[in-house]
Amino acid sequence: MEKVNLEQKLSLFSEHWSPKIVGELNGQHVKLAKLKGEFIWHKHDHEDELFFVIKGSFKMEYRDRTVVINENEFLIVPKGVEHRPVAEEEVSIMLFEPASTLNTGDAESELTKHILDRI
Amino acid sequence: MEKVNLEQKLSLFSEHWSPKIVGELNGQHVKLAKLKGEFIWHKHDHEDELFFVIKGSFKMEYRDRTVVINENEFLIVPKGVEHRPVAEEEVSIMLFEPASTLNTGDAESELTKHILDRI
Repeated sequence: MEKVNLEQKLSLFSEHWSPKIVGELNGQHVKLAKLKGEFIWHKHDHEDELFFVIKGSFKMEYRDRTVVINENEFLIVPKGVEHRPVAEEEVSIMLFEPASTLNTGDAESELTKHILDRI
Repeated sequence: MEKVNLEQKLSLFSEHWSPKIVGELNGQHVKLAKLKGEFIWHKHDHEDELFFVIKGSFKMEYRDRTVVINENEFLIVPKGVEHRPVAEEEVSIMLFEPASTLNTGDAESELTKHILDRI
């Protein structure tokens, strides 16, 4: 019931591709993350995933096209759809997705974060 | 899988207290709304509700205290908690909540919106 300030929360971490939990409701998590560089191709078999850009921009690659997402824009990637986020410059994003969502979906690797910090 | 630009969507309506659906994922809705003035006291028995401020600010009154929410801040109101949003000036917000959520919760009135536009 306390408010969350995105800038303040973003100031608490600097690592890339490591989502932090900043809120929880109805079985969903609200997460913040900083992205830079290319992630891996993956999909989530059971979860739709929302990406909202707070600062900067990045592109979401699908197998057949690419969508560029800028500040104050969001994108919903439906379950089952392969995607790969790519950020040429650092971008800060907010994610909204089920608490069960793994960052690398079906492509478990050294990038997979099984346990996320709550900040 | 197309992106949504908040400013563009906000330009499509002007009425207050009339949430518009702009996204859907995992049984949840993403809504945009413009608030001005005082809403009514209500609670949602089964739904937590997230309020994110895009432009402006407003206060969320609880029975025992008030939280002021500014741009780039969000607040989660847990199910069962009585609340009343009050906006002295117009504020534009984004909501995340289950698709089942009624805007007036348990306080059905002439302010209740049973059918929301998708924009």
